Amino acid sequence: MISSKPVRGTRDILPDEMKIRDRLEQQILAVYRAHGFSRIETPVMENLELLLGSDGGENLKMLFTILKRGEKLKLNQDASVLDLCDMGLRFDLTLPLSRFYSNNQEGLETPFKAIQIGNVFRAERPQKGRFRAFKQCDIDIIGDPSVHAEIELMDTTAKALLAMGFKGFTIKVNHRQLLSEVIIKAGFAIDQVGTVCISLDKMDKIGADGVTKELLEKGHGEEQVEKLMACVTGVNLDNLDQWVANVGAMGELTEVISTVKTLAKDNYEVVFDFSLIRGMGYYTGLIFEVSYGPYGYSIAGGGRYDNMIGKYSKVSVPAVGFSIGFERIITILMEEQQNAQQIDPAMILFYDSQTNSMVEVISEADRWRSNGYLVNLVAMKKKFGKQIAAWDNGQYEGFLVFGRDEEIKNF
Amino acid sequence: MISSKPVRGTRDILPDEMKIRDRLEQQILAVYRAHGFSRIETPVMENLELLLGSDGGENLKMLFTILKRGEKLKLNQDASVLDLCDMGLRFDLTLPLSRFYSNNQEGLETPFKAIQIGNVFRAERPQKGRFRAFKQCDIDIIGDPSVHAEIELMDTTAKALLAMGFKGFTIKVNHRQLLSEVIIKAGFAIDQVGTVCISLDKMDKIGADGVTKELLEKGHGEEQVEKLMACVTGVNLDNLDQWVANVGAMGELTEVISTVKTLAKDNYEVVFDFSLIRGMGYYTGLIFEVSYGPYGYSIAGGGRYDNMIGKYSKVSVPAVGFSIGFERIITILMEEQQNAQQIDPAMILFYDSQTNSMVEVISEADRWRSNGYLVNLVAMKKKFGKQIAAWDNGQYEGFLVFGRDEEIKNF
Repeated sequence: MISSKPVRGTRDILPDEMKIRDRLEQQILAVYRAHGFSRIETPVMENLELLLGSDGGENLKMLFTILKRGEKLKLNQDASVLDLCDMGLRFDLTLPLSRFYSNNQEGLETPFKAIQIGNVFRAERPQKGRFRAFKQCDIDIIGDPSVHAEIELMDTTAKALLAMGFKGFTIKVNHRQLLSEVIIKAGFAIDQVGTVCISLDKMDKIGADGVTKELLEKGHGEEQVEKLMACVTGVNLDNLDQWVANVGAMGELTEVISTVKTLAKDNYEVVFDFSLIRGMGYYTGLIFEVSYGPYGYSIAGGGRYDNMIGKYSKVSVPAVGFSIGFERIITILMEEQQNAQQIDPAMILFYDSQTNSMVEVISEADRWRSNGYLVNLVAMKKKFGKQIAAWDNGQYEGFLVFGRDEEIKNF
Repeated sequence: MISSKPVRGTRDILPDEMKIRDRLEQQILAVYRAHGFSRIETPVMENLELLLGSDGGENLKMLFTILKRGEKLKLNQDASVLDLCDMGLRFDLTLPLSRFYSNNQEGLETPFKAIQIGNVFRAERPQKGRFRAFKQCDIDIIGDPSVHAEIELMDTTAKALLAMGFKGFTIKVNHRQLLSEVIIKAGFAIDQVGTVCISLDKMDKIGADGVTKELLEKGHGEEQVEKLMACVTGVNLDNLDQWVANVGAMGELTEVISTVKTLAKDNYEVVFDFSLIRGMGYYTGLIFEVSYGPYGYSIAGGGRYDNMIGKYSKVSVPAVGFSIGFERIITILMEEQQNAQQIDPAMILFYDSQTNSMVEVISEADRWRSNGYLVNLVAMKKKFGKQIAAWDNGQYEGFLVFGRDEEIKNF
């Protein structure tokens, strides 16, 4: 017998969870649309050359690639993935959006405010809560070089999170240009910025002492590490100019934080966090992430990527995006048992399949449906008492028996 | 510069179409849910062995397969697709549903009424209106051996089509067992049933004369062909028993047609069509398709497949499904220019990015949003008249200028 398990690292989604997922997706979409964003969609497959030519960082090691069709494959030991495959599954929604914008630019508004909701694929080592196929909900603003784009993205994403019942989350903000400046000023070489960032990124988990230790173990000089850590632990919005010289970047950072703080009222926090790094190689300016409660992972993240669209287009176009990690949202909401209630009342109309007319049964069901009920038709079994008990699964308010009476009996 | 086209045979979906797609999907989902169906979801990838072991017919030749990861590939001329790949993209939603049901049976209602809305993938030769990735909307009833399942599926699918604005479509119905009986009684061998069906399937396009000619050219005897064609062209619901002996199948066919005819009122037709074949190898009973207007393709199709779930499960479980071809629905509705109107009123709030406070601009936008408007924020350019003209693209009712006055100016 063939196995009925889904492929490794993925899962089947059952009706109870699907109901919650559909409702949350509609809530997110409604907020995004109300803020002037328009939904688009691209295929889950992209040309392999496009994927491999991107600044996808670690994600490029986790590509699922699709075998070429209709041509003779080079099947010897020298064969590379490009000899065998010509497409891959997308690992994020940002790269496809950049391709999309270049391909369809003429028909799009300027600035273009895009919504994308869809699955992305990464061959992660399977572990609890990490999947190889997962949904992201992205908004991006393309064509606006000013921080108004960042402000709109943060305001809109925050409102979507509030609409789903999250409250008291924190938006952490940093600026890639300030990060680079500090690292280089501390005495590191430009080509060391990447590895230094990987260590700084662990501040949440191992603290400043842990990061210091790791940097020294990597062989960096004591003086450099000391300078860097003094900045990372000592910098705040008020003393920023003691540490960095990039006035433009400083202005962007402070304007975004103070504006979004005012918009946030008491609903959420906005903070400067110099240890916020974000993995992707393509960010060029402000970067941001949302953390919530005791969960050790971010529930949303994004940043500015002004150089990506230029790779596919004749002109360089500024862009910035913010992505909600849908699977993480769902995991938290299911754990906190919020949002689990049924929206519309559902009931079962039992009928006798031997004697009742299906035309009459369906007409009766339609009468209830027109009053807002979800009605499931079920043929009665001989052991009706036992059957009723089996349907008492929390999904239905009650039931009717066709032809007997009108009052709904509660389960 | 890297190409910005989507992969061969697929396309990007732009905001105007996406708005219509989202609305239609919600309309379909609402009808399905009102009729007691529950949505589930499975991954787009399935194990390759599962896909190759199915009765997928021609679709198996159109599989997209995914390269194995993390193990040494057998890269020599004898390598088969199973040496190179371990997963494939699903080509329909019926096979994944059967796997899903076997995997999750214990937590599911009986009968289980499933909704699936998702993309499937087939390496079709690219041509107008045919895509390599396309959306299907399926409902299936698992665990009900009676024709009540077929009746519910037809009633529900018809109501979904009506809700989207289709009227006057035709549900064609046939029965696989009657087809086989007639073909064999006419003198064909059991192993010829498949090729005979391929010819009969062309009745719509080449007529009875064309089918007769093709069967003779395939080398079948004149007498057999004559007997078969006499039945195909002469059979109707009243004289069915002159042609076939399977009383059970006849009873199913007539009960379904007469019941759904009554439910249809004047909204749509239900007809017996003995030339309806359906391509998949897995159907075992009633089969059905929806045709609409002058379009030469069906907009929905389905049938009973009682033997599929047994391949993954210890017990055999009866099942029947009905699938709406979402891309075809969209193509027709976009051609007929129905459904193109905006649901919610949308407007633009122009602001001066130099002098206006983003906090005040966003608060003003929120006031309009709370009254049901979709509000897009746009920074004013120097040539404001020209900018306004560029935004007059049919997507917005009008615009406001922050701080000037409250009345929306029409585009």
